[in-house]
Amino acid sequence: MGSMIKQLAVLGSTGSIGRQTLEVVRALPHRFCTIGLAASRNIELLAKQISEFKPRLVYFPDEEARACLANTGCEFLSLEDIACHPQVDTIVIATSGKSGLLPLVAAIKSSKHIALANKESLVMAGEVITKEAKRYKARIIPVDSEHSAIWQCLSGEKQRAAKLILTASGGPFLHYSPTQLDKVTVKQALKHPSWQMGRKVTIDSATLMNKGLEVIEAHWLFDMPFEGIKVLIHPQSLVHSLVEFIDGSVKAQLGYPDMRLPIQYALSCPERLPNPQLPRLNWESLNNLTFEQPNFDTFPCLKLAIEAGKRGGTYPAVLCAADEVAVELFLSQCIKFTNIAHLVEQALEQHQAVTHPTLDEIMAADTWAREKVSQLTIGDSQC
Amino acid sequence: MGSMIKQLAVLGSTGSIGRQTLEVVRALPHRFCTIGLAASRNIELLAKQISEFKPRLVYFPDEEARACLANTGCEFLSLEDIACHPQVDTIVIATSGKSGLLPLVAAIKSSKHIALANKESLVMAGEVITKEAKRYKARIIPVDSEHSAIWQCLSGEKQRAAKLILTASGGPFLHYSPTQLDKVTVKQALKHPSWQMGRKVTIDSATLMNKGLEVIEAHWLFDMPFEGIKVLIHPQSLVHSLVEFIDGSVKAQLGYPDMRLPIQYALSCPERLPNPQLPRLNWESLNNLTFEQPNFDTFPCLKLAIEAGKRGGTYPAVLCAADEVAVELFLSQCIKFTNIAHLVEQALEQHQAVTHPTLDEIMAADTWAREKVSQLTIGDSQC
Repeated sequence: MGSMIKQLAVLGSTGSIGRQTLEVVRALPHRFCTIGLAASRNIELLAKQISEFKPRLVYFPDEEARACLANTGCEFLSLEDIACHPQVDTIVIATSGKSGLLPLVAAIKSSKHIALANKESLVMAGEVITKEAKRYKARIIPVDSEHSAIWQCLSGEKQRAAKLILTASGGPFLHYSPTQLDKVTVKQALKHPSWQMGRKVTIDSATLMNKGLEVIEAHWLFDMPFEGIKVLIHPQSLVHSLVEFIDGSVKAQLGYPDMRLPIQYALSCPERLPNPQLPRLNWESLNNLTFEQPNFDTFPCLKLAIEAGKRGGTYPAVLCAADEVAVELFLSQCIKFTNIAHLVEQALEQHQAVTHPTLDEIMAADTWAREKVSQLTIGDSQC
Repeated sequence: MGSMIKQLAVLGSTGSIGRQTLEVVRALPHRFCTIGLAASRNIELLAKQISEFKPRLVYFPDEEARACLANTGCEFLSLEDIACHPQVDTIVIATSGKSGLLPLVAAIKSSKHIALANKESLVMAGEVITKEAKRYKARIIPVDSEHSAIWQCLSGEKQRAAKLILTASGGPFLHYSPTQLDKVTVKQALKHPSWQMGRKVTIDSATLMNKGLEVIEAHWLFDMPFEGIKVLIHPQSLVHSLVEFIDGSVKAQLGYPDMRLPIQYALSCPERLPNPQLPRLNWESLNNLTFEQPNFDTFPCLKLAIEAGKRGGTYPAVLCAADEVAVELFLSQCIKFTNIAHLVEQALEQHQAVTHPTLDEIMAADTWAREKVSQLTIGDSQC
């Protein structure tokens, strides 16, 4: 049986999901212990986290900056080495972008319990990852509220689902016209109506690219053909996703929109833990849950993502990389909101895809897409 | 392993649930075979069912009437003898009122797979039944859409639920004032907005007594204190019930309101079977799910039932019996709709309860309550 206390490593501990993971650990010290922390930019917060959680294993890329952590007694390791460290039994991968990919592979190969918050790794390399996970019997538990919802709905079911229905808040621009969308500012785009998240994912939620990436993720996580995955707009963000079974019965998972709940479930499942800090749905005030179809014309990123997912190969990697660069350009006010989709579309159009790519080929496609988007914006952007 | 085809007996085969059970059997002949049928009034329909399904075991109480079935080659048995017959592996108890109680006990004692549609047996004798079911390791699978929903939501969960939330359509008189309720006719009360059901349960849905009985049923089926059971009005009848877990996560089961789905699940679970005849939720038209608190003042039957459940002993048996008689009086246009609650309330008030009653004591309370309601209406009723 071993200890009841799970030994956690949190990659991306200073980001939004990382910080909320540590809140869960703080609330449940009898169940979780943090023995690894990794961050790539915010050394101040990392130093605070180290002094509170006293991890033995730490990653921070800047050698000079981490001099200030010299007296902590921590061992400095790479992300991959933390991910496969024998003392870590549960690894939270909450880094952003493609940086999650190699640690994820390392964790899979050491058959860890993996709480996966990083979307890009599954989107970029879903085929490789799911094959390796099967081979090494690694458990990849999704942290995303939508995939966590589906995971919970599938619990106890003996057969494949017939359909997965991912809900989407619709973001801050749900019923905007294309003309209105053309003029939205960074500040407006960063105001998400229901979720507190990092900047990149908040913009992706506003373009619905985030939902598109989640469709690809769901395809790999639940071995579901794209035709069986549906997106429904649900502005209240209380129903986190639904599953339709072969008999027509449907299960949904609901909850107050707070990422700590799916994070905690990813750490504890199949067990559930009482945590008084988690807010609950208020049954007295529950009154209206609305659903509508997404508008693929107004939000072309959703369509681009699903198409890239269906085409497979290196297309999803190009999608991810192009989107990352384009969102960065939008956040720096170099391009308009609607140009995010245009740039991603052009990158996908011009890409010479590789089918059944290796990790190296995926990385190469990523690099290609980043350069392509930069080229496309030279002269064109306002930066 | 034995045969993959389940050998079914359907008690109450000519009623609403019984007929729909046979529709499921008809649609899935490679999985289900009907070897027992039981009805108590409609011999014409029973004869048709016998000629179609060719059961070996039959119950019909009227010896004279069943002369017409003499050439069918069926063996005539009592409900209890069918329920515990060695060739029956799955028994559907869909009789109405207290007639389900003794066959249920017989089925439990022979450790059958039991699909229970009869509410009254668990309401009247929940303590005895759950104790016996534990002792004989009998599986009681609920057929009611609400309890089936909870059953499905609990699938795969290792821990007790924190809260059960039973949904109620609210019936045809949802926002009626007490004055309006005073004047409703039998015809109005029999028009249920979302479900096709028998007459008794349709009236019970209009008074919300049905939901009260379901609260008591849920208490016993899921070993949940009354404080942990909540009722929410949900007029669209698409969310059939919800379960809140200890971490605050909530699961709901949804489906097109068609009793064949929970019936089929009760027969097949934990497996799910594709059945093209079952209607499905239409994701394109799903738009609005509304919820509101029930009004205990306008619908006193709900309060009466929950109170009777909490007080326990023979109170729930009195509740059931008094309600059955009162509903019959209303259907015969002898009393007003609002008098159903008054009669039940008076019977409960005047009852000298027995705690931890035996089946005999429960039956005695039932008889007492029926007589009491008849006495109370003498002179007072319009019949």
